[in-house]
Amino acid sequence: MITEYIKTIFYEDPKLENPVLVEGLPGVGNVGKLAAEHLLEQIEAIKFAEIYSKYFPPQVLVDDEGLIKLVNNELYYSKGDGKRPDLIILVGDYQGLTPDGQYELSDHVLQIAKKYGVKMIFTLGGYGVGKMVEKPRVLGAATDKELVEEMKKHGVVFSKGEPGSGIVGASGLLLGLGKIYGMRAVCLMGETSGYFVDPKGAEVVLRVLAEVLSVDIDFSALEDKAEQIDLITSKIREIETPPEPKREDLGYIG
Amino acid sequence: MITEYIKTIFYEDPKLENPVLVEGLPGVGNVGKLAAEHLLEQIEAIKFAEIYSKYFPPQVLVDDEGLIKLVNNELYYSKGDGKRPDLIILVGDYQGLTPDGQYELSDHVLQIAKKYGVKMIFTLGGYGVGKMVEKPRVLGAATDKELVEEMKKHGVVFSKGEPGSGIVGASGLLLGLGKIYGMRAVCLMGETSGYFVDPKGAEVVLRVLAEVLSVDIDFSALEDKAEQIDLITSKIREIETPPEPKREDLGYIG
Amino acid sequence: MITEYIKTIFYEDPKLENPVLVEGLPGVGNVGKLAAEHLLEQIEAIKFAEIYSKYFPPQVLVDDEGLIKLVNNELYYSKGDGKRPDLIILVGDYQGLTPDGQYELSDHVLQIAKKYGVKMIFTLGGYGVGKMVEKPRVLGAATDKELVEEMKKHGVVFSKGEPGSGIVGASGLLLGLGKIYGMRAVCLMGETSGYFVDPKGAEVVLRVLAEVLSVDIDFSALEDKAEQIDLITSKIREIETPPEPKREDLGYIG
Amino acid sequence: MITEYIKTIFYEDPKLENPVLVEGLPGVGNVGKLAAEHLLEQIEAIKFAEIYSKYFPPQVLVDDEGLIKLVNNELYYSKGDGKRPDLIILVGDYQGLTPDGQYELSDHVLQIAKKYGVKMIFTLGGYGVGKMVEKPRVLGAATDKELVEEMKKHGVVFSKGEPGSGIVGASGLLLGLGKIYGMRAVCLMGETSGYFVDPKGAEVVLRVLAEVLSVDIDFSALEDKAEQIDLITSKIREIETPPEPKREDLGYIG
Repeated sequence: MITEYIKTIFYEDPKLENPVLVEGLPGVGNVGKLAAEHLLEQIEAIKFAEIYSKYFPPQVLVDDEGLIKLVNNELYYSKGDGKRPDLIILVGDYQGLTPDGQYELSDHVLQIAKKYGVKMIFTLGGYGVGKMVEKPRVLGAATDKELVEEMKKHGVVFSKGEPGSGIVGASGLLLGLGKIYGMRAVCLMGETSGYFVDPKGAEVVLRVLAEVLSVDIDFSALEDKAEQIDLITSKIREIETPPEPKREDLGYIG
Repeated sequence: MITEYIKTIFYEDPKLENPVLVEGLPGVGNVGKLAAEHLLEQIEAIKFAEIYSKYFPPQVLVDDEGLIKLVNNELYYSKGDGKRPDLIILVGDYQGLTPDGQYELSDHVLQIAKKYGVKMIFTLGGYGVGKMVEKPRVLGAATDKELVEEMKKHGVVFSKGEPGSGIVGASGLLLGLGKIYGMRAVCLMGETSGYFVDPKGAEVVLRVLAEVLSVDIDFSALEDKAEQIDLITSKIREIETPPEPKREDLGYIG
Repeated sequence: MITEYIKTIFYEDPKLENPVLVEGLPGVGNVGKLAAEHLLEQIEAIKFAEIYSKYFPPQVLVDDEGLIKLVNNELYYSKGDGKRPDLIILVGDYQGLTPDGQYELSDHVLQIAKKYGVKMIFTLGGYGVGKMVEKPRVLGAATDKELVEEMKKHGVVFSKGEPGSGIVGASGLLLGLGKIYGMRAVCLMGETSGYFVDPKGAEVVLRVLAEVLSVDIDFSALEDKAEQIDLITSKIREIETPPEPKREDLGYIG
Repeated sequence: MITEYIKTIFYEDPKLENPVLVEGLPGVGNVGKLAAEHLLEQIEAIKFAEIYSKYFPPQVLVDDEGLIKLVNNELYYSKGDGKRPDLIILVGDYQGLTPDGQYELSDHVLQIAKKYGVKMIFTLGGYGVGKMVEKPRVLGAATDKELVEEMKKHGVVFSKGEPGSGIVGASGLLLGLGKIYGMRAVCLMGETSGYFVDPKGAEVVLRVLAEVLSVDIDFSALEDKAEQIDLITSKIREIETPPEPKREDLGYIG
């Protein structure tokens, strides 16, 4: 297979018009990955390419039937429905393990994106705040001022000093390198504790993206997952927080 | 020697018919390495190639006579006896040190395997369970459903969620990359504590492989090693576990 | 963008005569970075090139308006005013992440420097002493004895055994590799605790450089920053050091 | 300078007859480095090449006069005197930082060695035993049995299981790769605690080498250094070990 460092196997060569690239790879709270995977399920996107690379871990995953899968990134496409644009969606098991691997992989994806005429990119990620978040905000960063203004209309928060340390990994590089390729790009970051896989963070990010791109999405599956996680985390908090004393325990007062 | 990153020195160019590749490199409990080395001793396989690489540690080993050996991987072959197929066996001192080294080395072996007409691969490894195992199971993973079914007939366990983290290293990559090369492949993993070199784990894995490939193997040497390890570990357990009080110590009861 | 490991985008091709290269990248106390940035602001140097590289972190920075910037190094130039020479100034967000990245990036800068006719280099850095420094010295190292003597006249200290561990990173490599390129070079190191970003260390380094190169510089902005840091650190010291007992607390003596 | 990964600058192209290569790079107790440096000083060997590389740390050293030196490895030669053979001596500030850098650098040195007709190599190193050694042995490892026997005659110890973990770094690789180049090679390892720079270890190693190669060496400088270290370490032991009670403290016995 691989004498190259990155090997992409194409299963189809879709005809797309001005497709928008959406990225959701593993990261803080897996917010971006959850959001992108929910998106591609909802719009029944079709896998057209698999990206294998020496920059990924030397690892196969094993599914419930005992079948192996070499870790990879995958590209899906979905034709627009008149209302929403054509989409290319990037999901995967891992990001590149090394800094230069990160650059190479993002650059590789951008070269494919360029070939298909991508001029606009949305990268999805989590913004770890280190504590439980009741109503997560969606923070943004973009390649130009017009995009910042447009995103603000959709409720995206551009907050001075957030994220203070910038954006690391594919969600950042696709913006930074994309800009050099002449593409416009936005990163949408859902607030998340960073302690759990966070479907709630994914939901708020995807709600913004769905509105911006006019995609109809049923969020119930994501909401269910979010409720399950809420249940688990609230139970954990119960264990950690001593309960308020109940009335009957205080009988000696009366 | 080496301006390449991997340098293979061939000592012979054996004529083989549809050889099966068996891999047993160092790993959890050295199960795979022990099994493959026992196999090649039993069938008196012949070394035909040595693989040197900058992806291995910069190290020579010193034998009991003071002679050095640059760390490497080695390929052995054995012609079939009518009953069992021709075999190529991969053993070695180390796996690649880096993720990309792992990919390069596995890919290199597969290119050699392809040249010799390999269509079927067995990789042997340990499955660390973190505690002593009385009767180790052999878990499996494979590239296709037919192989899964076939292996089940030989007692291989395909258990949902095991191994949860996938298969890392050569035992995984030879399956994942091999599949891309169009080869069928099975990984056989013997349960092992992961704390010791584990000949018992090696034995159960090799018993399955021997049955599948119709190889006659005398397991007594491996059983002896397993007994020695059992002796050592049971002594350790004695030290760690306070002994049950003996009858005579309990005189006051009587 | 990047199939190369380092990609420099030139915005202008300035005509320069025997320009002097000044380097100030992040390092101990960010002394060199602060000094070089203050210099380029004061002389209103013009950015003419941006250096992107896979040796930098895979990261974008986000400014207060929500706009992203891929981390990079930047080259500025300033034409001399008859008194001072033409200058090329190297500043940036990061140094290379890996040793070989450090070598490649410094070599890349030297190739650009050579193209523009650079024969003299000043690298600026901090010399961490692990404690607060009231009056920081400027230590030096150079490629030849004449430079050492010349720098001594400007108050630069060449002290046996300092810095004991040599000079690591771009400030060292530009001297070491520069020498091989036939360039003369000096490293100026301002003493600094190493615990804080240190504008005071930057000021003393830049005062030497300004004198050597006959550059007129207004130091007030740097002095203001130094005062702010002094204020913060003195407050920290107050908290850490128990205050001297005041007179009235000691009434029982009298 | 460097678009290559290793750049060797030759100052001279000496005419040598069957030169013997001696390596002494930094390592355990710096035994090899001390021995090789003492050797080249004693025989007034002449530097003929400097090896620079991206595999070394990105660092310059600063001497007592404030002059910088990019870290490197250096090759010296010395013509034989009829009694002893021509010699090439490899010394340096560092070994390669990464495993593949180690391989590349050793291979690079062997290519130079081959060019000059080297057929025999001695690598010098320390064998860390983790405790103070009164009379250090010299352990050996070699590429063939004849060399083992020859070295035994000079008092070199070939001890089963020592060194158990093999020989790591240049001292090992020059043997392992050298053998592939068709060169014969011996590694001489002086026992050392591994806690200090150890001139005593260097002395015993060099005494063997001097005898084997018929080199006249004055060991007084090395012995002086060894005494100084002995003095320091014995003082440290005094501090750590409570002193034996002196006679007069025990008056109550008498």
